[in-house]
Amino acid sequence: MLVLASGSEIRAEMLRKAGVAFAVDPAQVDERPIFKTMQADGLPAHVIADALAEAKAQQVANRRPGDLVIGADQVLVCEGRLFEKPGSLTEAAEQLRFLRGKPHELLSAVVIFEGASPVWRTIGRVRMEMRAFSDAFLDEYVARQGDDLLTTVGAYKLETAGAQLFTRVEGDYFSVLGLPLLEVLDFLRSRNIGLT
Amino acid sequence: MLVLASGSEIRAEMLRKAGVAFAVDPAQVDERPIFKTMQADGLPAHVIADALAEAKAQQVANRRPGDLVIGADQVLVCEGRLFEKPGSLTEAAEQLRFLRGKPHELLSAVVIFEGASPVWRTIGRVRMEMRAFSDAFLDEYVARQGDDLLTTVGAYKLETAGAQLFTRVEGDYFSVLGLPLLEVLDFLRSRNIGLT
Repeated sequence: MLVLASGSEIRAEMLRKAGVAFAVDPAQVDERPIFKTMQADGLPAHVIADALAEAKAQQVANRRPGDLVIGADQVLVCEGRLFEKPGSLTEAAEQLRFLRGKPHELLSAVVIFEGASPVWRTIGRVRMEMRAFSDAFLDEYVARQGDDLLTTVGAYKLETAGAQLFTRVEGDYFSVLGLPLLEVLDFLRSRNIGLT
Repeated sequence: MLVLASGSEIRAEMLRKAGVAFAVDPAQVDERPIFKTMQADGLPAHVIADALAEAKAQQVANRRPGDLVIGADQVLVCEGRLFEKPGSLTEAAEQLRFLRGKPHELLSAVVIFEGASPVWRTIGRVRMEMRAFSDAFLDEYVARQGDDLLTTVGAYKLETAGAQLFTRVEGDYFSVLGLPLLEVLDFLRSRNIGLT
């Protein structure tokens, strides 16, 4: 059986809408210490995103030896600074203030486990550019979105009000939402999940 | 007031999710004869998409002189052949068989009227590549999606099962859905619709 090791509603929605049958069994990985340690070690963003996706898939695969388990993670890079999900609304506002008026890169890593081993991995990369919105816009945006902002890297949801933050999105939209869907579907078809 | 001169549910959803307030008042333009005539005249796809978007905005603007009216249209180009919405499931299946295994370009035009005049226009261009799916996949896809396929250029909905058709999407996802949203929002902010 196919298992999504993520509690993200939007990842589940993408797979479901594409007609894929799967179970949801979120990993309980404390990402922040792993992220902080790897960041302190100077590791590049794509290595960190991949390692976090792997850690999540592996944890769930350990208790589901017969299943195909999808782990996913996103990391954002702007001017060499790395971002994960903000821990508070204050942090979310700080992130948005830092990203404002600048281009950044959003990395969306997926690792798929079968039993004890990773059998497939990919990283989607999207270049995005935030417009130079006003402080008034920022305050209103953070107040209105509230804790919803804490569920996403970069403190934005492009699929809803986040569209008001950007002047440009170059790359795969599904990767922005947290799953390079076309590549994942391609792998799943190769495993006879979905008609080829 | 802002008016969307399109009956497309997904266009309305994009604007609504981005926090824009507007009314829906679909144009009653018979697109096919305009499309066929311009195509017979050898006009390029972007000129046709723009003219159709303009015709829709203009018709609704004529009866709403005080409003800002958004018209939109999409045209698909593959190997020099132009496609509009399919007229039947047979035509949808023929389109998909033609597009299969090939790259194509999807053009998404928007024209905004204020009173009797166009005040803004844009065209989003997305390069997409369909995978070489099997006949069995195609038959099952067309049967399952049914008349839903007739509402979209290219007979696919990337936001749902259409994701299974593609190996690559290069460009703005919102344009694929039928509205270059970030550009439209930028214009609307310049008209004080939405906080800057």
